[in-house]
Amino acid sequence: MSQPVVVDSVAALRTQIHDWRRDGLRVAMVPTMGALHDGHISLVRIALEKAERCVVSIFVNPTQFAPSEDLDKYPRQLARDLDRLGAAKADLAFTPTVGEMYPAGFATKISVGGPSAGLESDFRPTFFEGVATVVAKLLLQATPDFAVFGEKDYQQLCVVRQLCGDLDLPVDIVGAPTIRDAHGLAMSSRNAYLDEAELKVARQLNVILRKTAVALAAGAHQNDATEEAIRDLIAAGFQKVDYVEARESLTLAPWRRNREGRLLAAAWLGKTRLIDNVGVPAA
Amino acid sequence: MSQPVVVDSVAALRTQIHDWRRDGLRVAMVPTMGALHDGHISLVRIALEKAERCVVSIFVNPTQFAPSEDLDKYPRQLARDLDRLGAAKADLAFTPTVGEMYPAGFATKISVGGPSAGLESDFRPTFFEGVATVVAKLLLQATPDFAVFGEKDYQQLCVVRQLCGDLDLPVDIVGAPTIRDAHGLAMSSRNAYLDEAELKVARQLNVILRKTAVALAAGAHQNDATEEAIRDLIAAGFQKVDYVEARESLTLAPWRRNREGRLLAAAWLGKTRLIDNVGVPAA
Repeated sequence: MSQPVVVDSVAALRTQIHDWRRDGLRVAMVPTMGALHDGHISLVRIALEKAERCVVSIFVNPTQFAPSEDLDKYPRQLARDLDRLGAAKADLAFTPTVGEMYPAGFATKISVGGPSAGLESDFRPTFFEGVATVVAKLLLQATPDFAVFGEKDYQQLCVVRQLCGDLDLPVDIVGAPTIRDAHGLAMSSRNAYLDEAELKVARQLNVILRKTAVALAAGAHQNDATEEAIRDLIAAGFQKVDYVEARESLTLAPWRRNREGRLLAAAWLGKTRLIDNVGVPAA
Repeated sequence: MSQPVVVDSVAALRTQIHDWRRDGLRVAMVPTMGALHDGHISLVRIALEKAERCVVSIFVNPTQFAPSEDLDKYPRQLARDLDRLGAAKADLAFTPTVGEMYPAGFATKISVGGPSAGLESDFRPTFFEGVATVVAKLLLQATPDFAVFGEKDYQQLCVVRQLCGDLDLPVDIVGAPTIRDAHGLAMSSRNAYLDEAELKVARQLNVILRKTAVALAAGAHQNDATEEAIRDLIAAGFQKVDYVEARESLTLAPWRRNREGRLLAAAWLGKTRLIDNVGVPAA
């Protein structure tokens, strides 16, 4: 099976992308942390609809993990990832080391306000600073025409849009729909942590969110609907619910019924934290 | 007298620069806050030695002024600036409004550690955050091959280098020597605030720094030498000295005698705060 070209230095990445540009080819980037699943592959497909060349970065970014989080056990499987990228016809895999991304003396942080407030930030207070800084770096290393991010990490997508708009990063950010298994479970590298019994519970997350979105669209009071969702999640077998909350879909400001909304949730299944989100139509 | 083309939107800036790039021309940028003097003009000259085209931004950036500082009275003289840029053969003046740079909802901040610690930051704690954010924006708006910054704002030059290195901003940062009047006073837009008597005192700043650098190079104890410099500045007529301090010239780490150093100072003359710096040779 063919594999993409693999580079691990910014210099080699830039040489390849410079060559493509010189030939008039557009470039789309898919930033990932590896452990690629069908969700990532759908991003590659969208990237190749937008541009002639697709570069996928694989980098488990330590600065977006808190000390208590799963950096060490986060799944790493480069050979398998490269096979999948080859099958998906991605052109280039960029696999920098931590030292290439954060050399000694590195000292810069980007903080994005607006859509980063609340939700994930209430539970992972330094997460979006880590994400914004590494995404800015990756986009400035590769300078792609497009970058594709999944709606699975919906708040992250909004933060990345805000980041690129605010800093005038010359790149089009493309949001891509969440890919789900046959039971509605959103694809996630962290699903690999789940056993069969937990998978069954996990699949209820999307079911309950969709039910709640329907109730909200039909006029249910916001607090009532989200509190019921939290009860349903616990009843389904989740141990803890970090949040279930409706926001405006574009700005992540508090949701008002006359605006298109997004219902976002994070919940714990054993030691695994799952997130998901669904649309809420405007009334 | 010829004048540069003036654009005030990012879109128009990018169109012009895109056209130059297409023609194989390199672009150097000189970010300024206007009130141009011979120091700025020397940056334009250096820019045009590096690249075929020079764009000068003129933007009094509100986010690098604290509420107590001189944002409102900072000198603004666009017509005169454009005449000077025309004489210096700058090609393009970028004069965005505050609304063009910071539209409603703007929410991103860049903080640079390392060289930003101490010195100016002890007295202007949000200054470099404002500088780093606006410089990143300007460089991403114009995407020049080179950007020229004066050594007069020495700590700022070090912060900008750190910023661009850390974020992989694809631009060469060029440091330019400080331009001084016949008496050694560093050119500064804030010199316009000084009357004749104050100008005489101001000129002692560089004299005292050079004397102190010579003493340090000759083996004087660092604290003794900088304390004497502070006494000399007060004796010369400065009302208050924020700091006189030796640092390593590249990293701004604490100075060690076997490294090339930089002696930096900030002092007040009435309501005007002046800064300057000189080299200290390695022992």
